[in-house]
Amino acid sequence: MPNRSVFFVSDGTGITAETFGNSILAQFSAKPRHVRRPFVDSAEKAGLVANEINATALREGKRPIVFVTLVNAQALEIIHDSQGLVFDMFKTFVEPLEKEFGMTSNHRVGRFSDVAKSKEYNDRIEAINFSLDHDDGQSTRNLELADVVLVGVSRSGKTPTSLYLAMQHGVKAANVPLIPEDFERNQLPSMLVPHKRKCFGLTIDPERLAQIRHERRPNSKYASLENCRYEVQAAEQMMRRESISWLSSTHKSIEEIATTILRDIQPDRLIY
Amino acid sequence: MPNRSVFFVSDGTGITAETFGNSILAQFSAKPRHVRRPFVDSAEKAGLVANEINATALREGKRPIVFVTLVNAQALEIIHDSQGLVFDMFKTFVEPLEKEFGMTSNHRVGRFSDVAKSKEYNDRIEAINFSLDHDDGQSTRNLELADVVLVGVSRSGKTPTSLYLAMQHGVKAANVPLIPEDFERNQLPSMLVPHKRKCFGLTIDPERLAQIRHERRPNSKYASLENCRYEVQAAEQMMRRESISWLSSTHKSIEEIATTILRDIQPDRLIY
Repeated sequence: MPNRSVFFVSDGTGITAETFGNSILAQFSAKPRHVRRPFVDSAEKAGLVANEINATALREGKRPIVFVTLVNAQALEIIHDSQGLVFDMFKTFVEPLEKEFGMTSNHRVGRFSDVAKSKEYNDRIEAINFSLDHDDGQSTRNLELADVVLVGVSRSGKTPTSLYLAMQHGVKAANVPLIPEDFERNQLPSMLVPHKRKCFGLTIDPERLAQIRHERRPNSKYASLENCRYEVQAAEQMMRRESISWLSSTHKSIEEIATTILRDIQPDRLIY
Repeated sequence: MPNRSVFFVSDGTGITAETFGNSILAQFSAKPRHVRRPFVDSAEKAGLVANEINATALREGKRPIVFVTLVNAQALEIIHDSQGLVFDMFKTFVEPLEKEFGMTSNHRVGRFSDVAKSKEYNDRIEAINFSLDHDDGQSTRNLELADVVLVGVSRSGKTPTSLYLAMQHGVKAANVPLIPEDFERNQLPSMLVPHKRKCFGLTIDPERLAQIRHERRPNSKYASLENCRYEVQAAEQMMRRESISWLSSTHKSIEEIATTILRDIQPDRLIY
Protein backbone atom coordinates (compact mmCIF):
# COMPACT_ATOMS: atom_id res chain seq x y z
CA MET A 1 0.00 0.00 0.00
CA PRO A 2 2.19 2.84 -1.24
CA ASN A 3 0.72 6.34 -1.36
CA ARG A 4 -1.32 5.93 1.77
CA SER A 5 -0.56 7.72 5.03
CA VAL A 6 -1.58 7.11 8.60
CA PHE A 7 -1.45 9.99 11.11
CA PHE A 8 -1.09 9.56 14.88
CA VAL A 9 -2.27 12.77 16.50
CA SER A 10 -2.07 13.24 20.24
CA ASP A 11 -1.83 15.95 22.90
CA GLY A 12 0.69 13.83 24.80
CA THR A 13 3.47 11.59 23.60
CA GLY A 14 1.27 9.82 21.08
CA ILE A 15 2.29 6.43 22.41
CA THR A 16 -1.29 5.47 23.18
CA ALA A 17 -2.44 6.63 19.75
CA GLU A 18 0.35 4.72 18.05
CA THR A 19 0.02 1.50 20.05
CA PHE A 20 -3.72 1.59 19.54
CA GLY A 21 -3.40 2.35 15.83
CA ASN A 22 -0.68 -0.20 15.20
CA SER A 23 -2.67 -2.97 16.87
CA ILE A 24 -5.45 -2.23 14.41
CA LEU A 25 -3.18 -1.84 11.38
CA ALA A 26 -1.47 -5.13 12.27
CA GLN A 27 -4.68 -6.81 11.12
CA PHE A 28 -3.89 -5.78 7.55
CA SER A 29 -1.13 -6.72 5.16
CA ALA A 30 -0.77 -3.02 4.35
CA LYS A 31 2.33 -0.95 5.08
CA PRO A 32 1.19 2.68 5.05
CA ARG A 33 3.53 5.58 5.76
CA HIS A 34 3.46 6.65 9.44
CA VAL A 35 3.28 10.31 10.41
CA ARG A 36 3.59 11.11 14.14
CA ARG A 37 2.25 14.38 15.49
CA PRO A 38 2.66 14.43 19.30
CA PHE A 39 2.06 17.34 21.72
CA VAL A 40 -0.87 18.80 19.72
CA ASP A 41 -2.38 20.65 22.66
CA SER A 42 -3.98 23.72 21.10
CA ALA A 43 -6.43 24.61 18.34
CA GLU A 44 -3.60 26.34 16.51
CA LYS A 45 -1.41 23.22 16.44
CA ALA A 46 -4.43 21.10 15.44
CA GLY A 47 -5.02 23.48 12.53
CA LEU A 48 -1.50 22.90 11.23
CA VAL A 49 -1.97 19.13 11.43
CA ALA A 50 -5.37 19.36 9.70
CA ASN A 51 -3.68 21.27 6.85
CA GLU A 52 -1.10 18.51 6.56
CA ILE A 53 -3.83 15.86 6.49
CA ASN A 54 -5.69 17.74 3.74
CA ALA A 55 -2.53 18.25 1.67
CA THR A 56 -1.76 14.54 2.00
CA ALA A 57 -5.29 13.59 0.90
CA LEU A 58 -4.88 15.78 -2.19
CA ARG A 59 -1.43 14.41 -3.00
CA GLU A 60 -2.25 10.74 -2.47
CA GLY A 61 -5.78 10.83 -3.86
CA LYS A 62 -7.00 8.89 -0.81
CA ARG A 63 -8.05 10.11 2.58
CA PRO A 64 -5.39 9.48 5.23
CA ILE A 65 -6.25 7.31 8.23
CA VAL A 66 -6.02 9.37 11.45
CA PHE A 67 -5.77 7.91 14.96
CA VAL A 68 -6.41 10.59 17.56
CA THR A 69 -6.11 10.71 21.33
CA LEU A 70 -7.01 14.33 21.96
CA VAL A 71 -9.00 15.55 24.92
CA ASN A 72 -9.07 19.24 23.94
CA ALA A 73 -12.55 19.52 22.36
CA GLN A 74 -11.64 22.35 20.02
CA ALA A 75 -8.49 20.65 18.72
CA LEU A 76 -10.44 17.44 18.28
CA GLU A 77 -13.14 19.15 16.23
CA ILE A 78 -10.55 20.64 13.90
CA ILE A 79 -9.08 17.18 13.25
CA HIS A 80 -12.54 15.68 12.76
CA ASP A 81 -13.28 18.38 10.17
CA SER A 82 -10.19 17.45 8.16
CA GLN A 83 -10.34 15.17 5.14
CA GLY A 84 -8.90 12.20 7.06
CA LEU A 85 -10.80 9.10 8.16
CA VAL A 86 -10.66 9.77 11.89
CA PHE A 87 -10.63 7.02 14.52
CA ASP A 88 -11.24 8.51 17.93
CA MET A 89 -10.72 6.16 20.84
CA PHE A 90 -11.79 8.66 23.47
CA LYS A 91 -15.10 9.64 21.91
CA THR A 92 -15.88 6.01 21.15
CA PHE A 93 -14.94 4.49 24.49
CA VAL A 94 -14.48 7.17 27.15
CA GLU A 95 -17.94 8.68 26.81
CA PRO A 96 -19.86 5.40 27.32
CA LEU A 97 -17.66 4.72 30.33
CA GLU A 98 -18.56 8.09 31.84
CA LYS A 99 -22.19 7.00 31.79
CA GLU A 100 -21.36 3.59 33.27
CA PHE A 101 -19.19 4.98 36.09
CA GLY A 102 -21.60 7.86 36.69
CA MET A 103 -18.68 10.30 36.72
CA THR A 104 -17.11 12.66 34.25
CA SER A 105 -13.66 11.80 32.98
CA ASN A 106 -10.73 13.98 33.82
CA HIS A 107 -10.38 15.05 30.21
CA ARG A 108 -6.98 16.21 31.13
CA VAL A 109 -4.64 17.58 28.57
CA GLY A 110 -1.19 16.02 28.78
CA ARG A 111 -2.09 12.88 30.60
CA PHE A 112 1.53 12.03 31.25
CA SER A 113 2.35 15.34 32.87
CA ASP A 114 2.27 14.16 36.48
CA VAL A 115 3.24 10.58 35.74
CA ALA A 116 6.85 11.23 36.72
CA LYS A 117 5.78 11.82 40.30
CA SER A 118 3.50 8.81 40.66
CA LYS A 119 4.33 5.75 42.71
CA GLU A 120 3.77 3.45 39.73
CA TYR A 121 6.26 5.41 37.67
CA ASN A 122 8.93 5.42 40.36
CA ASP A 123 8.40 1.67 40.86
CA ARG A 124 9.06 1.15 37.16
CA ILE A 125 12.29 3.17 37.22
CA GLU A 126 13.38 1.32 40.36
CA ALA A 127 12.60 -2.00 38.66
CA ILE A 128 14.68 -1.03 35.59
CA ASN A 129 17.64 -0.17 37.82
CA PHE A 130 17.18 -3.41 39.75
CA SER A 131 17.08 -5.47 36.56
CA LEU A 132 20.21 -3.77 35.22
CA ASP A 133 22.07 -4.29 38.50
CA HIS A 134 21.04 -7.95 38.52
CA ASP A 135 21.68 -8.65 34.85
CA ASP A 136 23.65 -11.77 34.00
CA GLY A 137 24.18 -12.82 37.63
CA GLN A 138 26.18 -9.63 38.28
CA SER A 139 24.90 -9.19 41.78
CA THR A 140 23.50 -11.77 44.15
CA ARG A 141 22.80 -9.05 46.67
CA ASN A 142 19.11 -8.46 47.33
CA LEU A 143 18.03 -11.39 45.18
CA GLU A 144 15.31 -11.83 47.78
CA LEU A 145 13.85 -8.51 46.54
CA ALA A 146 13.42 -9.87 43.01
CA ASP A 147 9.90 -10.65 41.83
CA VAL A 148 11.22 -13.03 39.18
CA VAL A 149 14.60 -14.65 38.52
CA LEU A 150 15.17 -15.72 34.93
CA VAL A 151 17.59 -18.59 34.33
CA GLY A 152 18.99 -20.14 31.17
CA VAL A 153 22.11 -20.52 29.07
CA SER A 154 23.96 -17.45 27.82
CA ARG A 155 22.08 -15.68 24.97
CA SER A 156 18.76 -17.45 25.53
CA GLY A 157 16.92 -14.10 25.79
CA LYS A 158 17.08 -13.43 29.55
CA THR A 159 18.31 -9.83 29.40
CA PRO A 160 15.76 -8.30 27.01
CA THR A 161 12.99 -10.19 28.81
CA SER A 162 14.02 -8.92 32.26
CA LEU A 163 14.27 -5.34 30.99
CA TYR A 164 10.88 -5.63 29.36
CA LEU A 165 9.31 -6.99 32.56
CA ALA A 166 10.78 -4.05 34.47
CA MET A 167 9.91 -1.37 31.95
CA GLN A 168 6.43 -2.52 31.02
CA HIS A 169 5.22 -4.05 34.26
CA GLY A 170 7.42 -2.55 37.00
CA VAL A 171 8.53 -6.09 37.89
CA LYS A 172 11.97 -6.55 39.47
CA ALA A 173 13.46 -9.23 37.26
CA ALA A 174 16.95 -10.55 37.97
CA ASN A 175 18.64 -12.98 35.63
CA VAL A 176 21.27 -15.61 36.29
CA PRO A 177 23.02 -17.63 33.58
CA LEU A 178 23.39 -21.40 33.68
CA ILE A 179 27.00 -22.04 32.63
CA PRO A 180 29.14 -25.11 31.81
CA GLU A 181 30.57 -25.14 35.38
CA ASP A 182 27.02 -25.58 36.72
CA PHE A 183 26.47 -28.53 34.40
CA GLU A 184 29.79 -30.13 35.40
CA ARG A 185 28.95 -29.79 39.09
CA ASN A 186 25.44 -30.89 38.14
CA GLN A 187 24.01 -28.38 40.60
CA LEU A 188 21.88 -25.28 40.34
CA PRO A 189 23.96 -22.13 41.12
CA SER A 190 23.78 -21.98 44.91
CA MET A 191 22.46 -18.40 44.96
CA LEU A 192 19.30 -19.65 43.22
CA VAL A 193 18.44 -22.39 45.68
CA PRO A 194 16.57 -20.19 48.21
CA HIS A 195 14.64 -18.52 45.36
CA LYS A 196 13.55 -21.51 43.28
CA ARG A 197 9.89 -20.56 43.61
CA LYS A 198 10.56 -17.30 41.73
CA CYS A 199 12.74 -18.88 39.04
CA PHE A 200 11.60 -19.17 35.44
CA GLY A 201 13.70 -20.75 32.71
CA LEU A 202 14.30 -19.77 29.10
CA THR A 203 15.54 -22.27 26.59
CA ILE A 204 16.24 -21.97 22.86
CA ASP A 205 16.85 -24.15 19.81
CA PRO A 206 20.57 -25.03 19.69
CA GLU A 207 20.74 -24.06 16.00
CA ARG A 208 19.38 -20.58 16.68
CA LEU A 209 21.63 -20.23 19.74
CA ALA A 210 24.72 -21.09 17.71
CA GLN A 211 23.72 -18.48 15.13
CA ILE A 212 23.28 -15.76 17.80
CA ARG A 213 26.53 -16.66 19.55
CA HIS A 214 28.47 -16.69 16.26
CA GLU A 215 27.51 -13.05 15.75
CA ARG A 216 29.15 -12.21 19.09
CA ARG A 217 32.12 -14.57 19.04
CA PRO A 218 32.63 -16.05 15.57
CA ASN A 219 34.12 -19.55 15.35
CA SER A 220 34.53 -19.96 19.12
CA LYS A 221 33.88 -23.16 21.06
CA TYR A 222 31.24 -21.10 22.89
CA ALA A 223 29.33 -20.61 19.62
CA SER A 224 29.85 -24.09 18.15
CA LEU A 225 26.70 -26.06 17.42
CA GLU A 226 28.06 -29.03 19.35
CA ASN A 227 28.59 -26.94 22.49
CA CYS A 228 25.23 -25.20 22.12
CA ARG A 229 23.51 -28.59 21.90
CA TYR A 230 25.31 -29.76 25.04
CA GLU A 231 24.50 -26.63 27.05
CA VAL A 232 20.83 -26.51 26.05
CA GLN A 233 20.30 -30.18 26.82
CA ALA A 234 22.09 -29.91 30.17
CA ALA A 235 20.14 -26.77 31.12
CA GLU A 236 16.79 -28.34 30.26
CA GLN A 237 17.69 -31.44 32.23
CA MET A 238 18.62 -29.31 35.25
CA MET A 239 15.44 -27.22 35.09
CA ARG A 240 13.32 -30.35 34.76
CA ARG A 241 15.00 -31.95 37.78
CA GLU A 242 14.63 -28.77 39.85
CA SER A 243 10.98 -28.32 38.83
CA ILE A 244 11.60 -24.90 37.29
CA SER A 245 9.01 -24.02 34.61
CA TRP A 246 10.49 -22.92 31.33
CA LEU A 247 9.64 -22.07 27.76
CA SER A 248 11.52 -21.76 24.52
CA SER A 249 12.28 -18.23 23.35
CA THR A 250 13.06 -19.35 19.78
CA HIS A 251 9.76 -18.41 18.16
CA LYS A 252 8.40 -16.07 20.83
CA SER A 253 8.57 -12.32 21.23
CA ILE A 254 9.64 -10.81 24.55
CA GLU A 255 6.03 -9.65 25.00
CA GLU A 256 4.78 -13.23 24.78
CA ILE A 257 7.51 -14.57 27.05
CA ALA A 258 6.85 -11.86 29.65
CA THR A 259 3.11 -12.49 29.62
CA THR A 260 3.60 -16.22 30.15
CA ILE A 261 6.03 -15.63 33.01
CA LEU A 262 3.66 -13.24 34.79
CA ARG A 263 0.78 -15.65 34.36
CA ASP A 264 2.82 -18.49 35.88
CA ILE A 265 4.78 -16.68 38.61
CA GLN A 266 2.07 -14.14 39.55
CA PRO A 267 4.30 -11.65 41.36
CA ASP A 268 2.60 -10.18 44.41
CA ARG A 269 2.97 -6.63 43.18
CA LEU A 270 0.76 -7.33 40.17
CA ILE A 271 -2.18 -8.68 42.17
CA TYR A 272 -4.33 -5.63 42.74
CA MET B 1 -13.74 2.62 43.19
CA PRO B 2 -13.59 -0.56 45.24
CA ASN B 3 -15.72 -3.51 44.19
CA ARG B 4 -15.36 -2.87 40.52
CA SER B 5 -13.36 -5.07 38.19
CA VAL B 6 -11.91 -4.53 34.74
CA PHE B 7 -11.08 -7.56 32.56
CA PHE B 8 -8.52 -7.56 29.76
CA VAL B 9 -9.31 -10.48 27.48
CA SER B 10 -7.11 -11.33 24.54
CA ASP B 11 -6.08 -14.22 22.32
CA GLY B 12 -2.49 -13.01 22.44
CA THR B 13 -0.46 -11.46 25.21
CA GLY B 14 -3.16 -8.96 26.10
CA ILE B 15 -0.71 -6.08 25.91
CA THR B 16 -2.76 -4.29 23.28
CA ALA B 17 -5.96 -4.81 25.28
CA GLU B 18 -4.31 -3.56 28.44
CA THR B 19 -2.56 -0.54 26.90
CA PHE B 20 -5.76 0.38 25.13
CA GLY B 21 -7.87 -0.11 28.25
CA ASN B 22 -5.47 1.70 30.56
CA SER B 23 -5.32 4.73 28.28
CA ILE B 24 -9.08 4.96 28.59
CA LEU B 25 -9.21 4.25 32.33
CA ALA B 26 -6.52 6.91 32.87
CA GLN B 27 -9.21 9.46 32.07
CA PHE B 28 -10.96 8.56 35.34
CA SER B 29 -9.97 8.97 38.94
CA ALA B 30 -11.14 5.38 39.50
CA LYS B 31 -8.83 2.53 40.52
CA PRO B 32 -10.68 -0.66 39.60
CA ARG B 33 -9.21 -4.13 40.15
CA HIS B 34 -7.41 -5.46 37.05
CA VAL B 35 -7.94 -9.02 35.84
CA ARG B 36 -5.74 -10.19 32.95
CA ARG B 37 -6.83 -13.11 30.81
CA PRO B 38 -4.32 -13.61 27.96
CA PHE B 39 -4.14 -16.46 25.41
CA VAL B 40 -7.94 -16.93 25.19
CA ASP B 41 -7.86 -18.57 21.78
CA SER B 42 -10.79 -20.97 21.83
CA ALA B 43 -14.52 -20.95 22.55
CA GLU B 44 -13.86 -23.20 25.53
CA LYS B 45 -11.42 -20.77 27.14
CA ALA B 46 -13.75 -17.86 26.35
CA GLY B 47 -16.53 -19.74 28.16
CA LEU B 48 -14.43 -19.98 31.33
CA VAL B 49 -13.69 -16.24 31.21
CA ALA B 50 -17.37 -15.44 30.61
CA ASN B 51 -18.23 -17.47 33.73
CA GLU B 52 -15.69 -15.45 35.71
CA ILE B 53 -17.15 -12.18 34.40
CA ASN B 54 -20.65 -13.28 35.37
CA ALA B 55 -19.56 -14.41 38.84
CA THR B 56 -17.81 -11.07 39.34
CA ALA B 57 -20.93 -9.15 38.24
CA LEU B 58 -22.97 -11.09 40.79
CA ARG B 59 -20.45 -10.60 43.60
CA GLU B 60 -19.83 -6.90 43.00
CA GLY B 61 -23.37 -5.96 42.04
CA LYS B 62 -22.02 -4.02 39.03
CA ARG B 63 -21.18 -5.22 35.58
CA PRO B 64 -17.42 -5.53 35.04
CA ILE B 65 -15.77 -3.48 32.29
CA VAL B 66 -14.26 -5.81 29.67
CA PHE B 67 -11.64 -4.77 27.10
CA VAL B 68 -11.31 -7.41 24.39
CA THR B 69 -8.92 -7.92 21.52
CA LEU B 70 -10.19 -11.24 20.18
CA VAL B 71 -10.29 -12.15 16.53
CA ASN B 72 -11.90 -15.58 16.94
CA ALA B 73 -15.57 -14.82 16.17
CA GLN B 74 -16.98 -17.58 18.35
CA ALA B 75 -14.86 -16.65 21.38
CA LEU B 76 -15.79 -13.01 20.88
CA GLU B 77 -19.50 -13.78 20.81
CA ILE B 78 -19.24 -15.69 24.07
CA ILE B 79 -17.59 -12.69 25.77
CA HIS B 80 -20.16 -10.28 24.26
CA ASP B 81 -22.93 -12.48 25.69
CA SER B 82 -21.48 -12.21 29.20
CA GLN B 83 -22.77 -9.74 31.75
CA GLY B 84 -19.78 -7.41 31.28
CA LEU B 85 -19.78 -4.02 29.54
CA VAL B 86 -17.67 -5.03 26.56
CA PHE B 87 -15.40 -2.61 24.68
CA ASP B 88 -14.26 -4.18 21.45
CA MET B 89 -11.56 -2.31 19.60
CA PHE B 90 -11.50 -4.65 16.64
CA LYS B 91 -15.21 -4.60 15.88
CA THR B 92 -15.30 -0.84 16.35
CA PHE B 93 -12.25 0.09 14.34
CA VAL B 94 -11.03 -2.83 12.22
CA GLU B 95 -14.28 -3.35 10.33
CA PRO B 96 -14.60 0.26 9.10
CA LEU B 97 -10.97 0.07 8.01
CA GLU B 98 -11.67 -3.06 5.96
CA LYS B 99 -14.20 -1.05 3.97
CA GLU B 100 -11.82 1.87 3.55
CA PHE B 101 -8.87 -0.26 2.43
CA GLY B 102 -11.10 -2.45 0.29
CA MET B 103 -9.46 -5.55 1.77
CA THR B 104 -10.32 -8.02 4.46
CA SER B 105 -8.19 -7.99 7.57
CA ASN B 106 -6.01 -10.91 8.42
CA HIS B 107 -8.12 -11.70 11.47
CA ARG B 108 -5.29 -13.77 12.63
CA VAL B 109 -5.35 -15.50 15.95
CA GLY B 110 -2.17 -14.91 17.92
CA ARG B 111 -1.00 -11.83 16.14
CA PHE B 112 2.39 -11.99 17.81
CA SER B 113 3.09 -15.53 16.71
CA ASP B 114 5.41 -14.71 13.84
CA VAL B 115 6.66 -11.46 15.30
CA ALA B 116 9.84 -13.13 16.54
CA LYS B 117 10.93 -13.72 12.95
CA SER B 118 10.17 -10.26 11.61
CA LYS B 119 12.79 -7.70 10.70
CA GLU B 120 11.22 -5.09 12.99
CA TYR B 121 11.45 -7.46 15.94
CA ASN B 122 15.07 -8.39 15.29
CA ASP B 123 15.93 -4.71 14.91
CA ARG B 124 14.42 -4.06 18.36
CA ILE B 125 16.43 -6.84 19.98
CA GLU B 126 19.58 -5.63 18.24
CA ALA B 127 18.85 -2.08 19.45
CA ILE B 128 18.43 -3.31 23.06
CA ASN B 129 21.78 -5.10 22.90
CA PHE B 130 23.39 -2.04 21.34
CA SER B 131 22.00 0.25 24.05
CA LEU B 132 23.19 -2.10 26.80
CA ASP B 133 26.67 -2.36 25.28
CA HIS B 134 26.83 1.43 24.97
CA ASP B 135 25.38 2.23 28.38
CA ASP B 136 27.23 4.80 30.47
CA GLY B 137 30.01 5.34 27.95
CA GLN B 138 31.11 1.69 28.29
CA SER B 139 32.02 1.34 24.67
CA THR B 140 32.99 3.99 22.17
CA ARG B 141 33.20 1.34 19.48
CA ASN B 142 30.60 1.69 16.74
CA LEU B 143 29.28 4.96 18.14
CA GLU B 144 28.79 5.88 14.49
CA LEU B 145 26.10 3.18 14.35
CA ALA B 146 24.07 4.88 17.09
CA ASP B 147 20.87 6.67 16.08
CA VAL B 148 20.97 8.82 19.19
CA VAL B 149 23.63 9.54 21.83
CA LEU B 150 22.27 10.73 25.18
CA VAL B 151 24.54 12.89 27.31
CA GLY B 152 24.19 14.27 30.82
CA VAL B 153 25.47 14.00 34.38
CA SER B 154 25.37 10.66 36.19
CA ARG B 155 21.78 9.73 37.24
CA SER B 156 20.03 12.23 35.02
CA GLY B 157 17.89 9.49 33.44
CA LYS B 158 20.02 8.49 30.45
CA THR B 159 19.94 4.71 30.96
CA PRO B 160 16.19 4.12 31.28
CA THR B 161 15.59 6.51 28.38
CA SER B 162 18.05 4.73 26.07
CA LEU B 163 16.57 1.34 26.93
CA TYR B 164 13.08 2.64 26.32
CA LEU B 165 14.08 4.08 22.93
CA ALA B 166 15.55 0.71 21.98
CA MET B 167 12.71 -1.42 23.28
CA GLN B 168 9.79 0.68 22.12
CA HIS B 169 11.13 2.20 18.91
CA GLY B 170 14.04 -0.05 17.86
CA VAL B 171 16.33 2.97 18.07
CA LYS B 172 20.02 2.38 18.83
CA ALA B 173 20.60 4.76 21.72
CA ALA B 174 24.05 5.04 23.27
CA ASN B 175 24.63 7.13 26.37
CA VAL B 176 27.73 8.90 27.59
CA PRO B 177 28.05 10.60 30.99
CA LEU B 178 29.37 14.12 31.46
CA ILE B 179 31.72 13.88 34.46
CA PRO B 180 33.71 16.32 36.62
CA GLU B 181 36.87 15.66 34.57
CA ASP B 182 35.06 16.92 31.47
CA PHE B 183 34.05 20.08 33.29
CA GLU B 184 37.61 20.66 34.54
CA ARG B 185 39.02 20.25 31.04
CA ASN B 186 36.04 22.32 29.87
CA GLN B 187 35.71 20.07 26.82
CA LEU B 188 33.10 17.68 25.53
CA PRO B 189 34.32 14.04 25.82
CA SER B 190 36.35 13.63 22.63
CA MET B 191 34.42 10.53 21.51
CA LEU B 192 31.30 12.72 21.20
CA VAL B 193 32.79 15.38 18.96
CA PRO B 194 32.24 13.55 15.62
CA HIS B 195 28.66 12.70 16.67
CA LYS B 196 27.37 16.03 17.98
CA ARG B 197 24.51 16.05 15.50
CA LYS B 198 23.08 12.89 17.13
CA CYS B 199 23.61 14.06 20.71
CA PHE B 200 20.73 14.94 23.00
CA GLY B 201 21.18 16.13 26.57
CA LEU B 202 19.28 15.33 29.74
CA THR B 203 19.43 17.62 32.71
CA ILE B 204 17.74 17.46 36.12
CA ASP B 205 17.00 19.66 39.13
CA PRO B 206 20.04 19.54 41.45
CA GLU B 207 17.77 18.88 44.48
CA ARG B 208 16.19 15.85 42.83
CA LEU B 209 19.61 14.65 41.62
CA ALA B 210 21.04 14.83 45.14
CA GLN B 211 18.08 12.80 46.41
CA ILE B 212 18.57 10.08 43.76
CA ARG B 213 22.34 9.94 44.30
CA HIS B 214 21.91 9.73 48.10
CA GLU B 215 19.92 6.53 47.63
CA ARG B 216 22.90 5.01 45.80
CA ARG B 217 25.81 6.51 47.78
CA PRO B 218 24.56 8.09 51.02
CA ASN B 219 26.52 11.07 52.37
CA SER B 220 29.11 11.03 49.58
CA LYS B 221 30.58 14.10 47.92
CA TYR B 222 29.07 12.68 44.72
CA ALA B 223 25.59 12.99 46.22
CA SER B 224 26.04 16.32 48.01
CA LEU B 225 23.71 19.10 46.95
CA GLU B 226 26.67 21.42 46.43
CA ASN B 227 28.35 19.01 44.02
CA CYS B 228 25.07 18.26 42.21
CA ARG B 229 24.51 22.00 41.70
CA TYR B 230 28.04 22.37 40.31
CA GLU B 231 27.76 19.40 37.92
CA VAL B 232 24.32 20.34 36.60
CA GLN B 233 25.33 23.94 35.98
CA ALA B 234 28.59 22.93 34.28
CA ALA B 235 26.80 20.34 32.11
CA GLU B 236 24.13 22.82 31.01
CA GLN B 237 26.80 25.39 30.20
CA MET B 238 28.70 22.84 28.11
CA MET B 239 25.61 21.69 26.21
CA ARG B 240 24.61 25.29 25.52
CA ARG B 241 28.07 26.12 24.21
CA GLU B 242 28.17 23.00 22.03
CA SER B 243 24.62 23.62 20.70
CA ILE B 244 23.31 20.29 22.00
CA SER B 245 19.54 20.35 22.58
CA TRP B 246 18.49 19.19 26.01
CA LEU B 247 15.51 18.91 28.32
CA SER B 248 15.01 18.37 32.01
CA SER B 249 13.98 14.89 33.09
CA THR B 250 12.80 16.07 36.53
CA HIS B 251 9.08 16.18 35.83
CA LYS B 252 8.97 14.06 32.69
CA SER B 253 8.36 10.38 32.13
CA ILE B 254 10.71 8.35 29.93
CA GLU B 255 7.87 8.17 27.37
CA GLU B 256 7.73 11.95 27.14
CA ILE B 257 11.49 12.32 27.00
CA ALA B 258 11.78 9.67 24.27
CA THR B 259 9.04 11.27 22.18
CA THR B 260 10.71 14.68 22.36
CA ILE B 261 14.09 13.21 21.41
CA LEU B 262 12.67 11.40 18.38
CA ARG B 263 10.83 14.52 17.26
CA ASP B 264 14.04 16.58 17.47
CA ILE B 265 16.64 14.09 16.23
CA GLN B 266 14.42 12.29 13.68
CA PRO B 267 16.56 9.15 13.30
CA ASP B 268 16.62 7.94 9.70
CA ARG B 269 15.27 4.53 10.61
CA LEU B 270 11.99 6.05 11.81
CA ILE B 271 11.25 7.94 8.61
CA TYR B 272 9.14 5.54 6.61
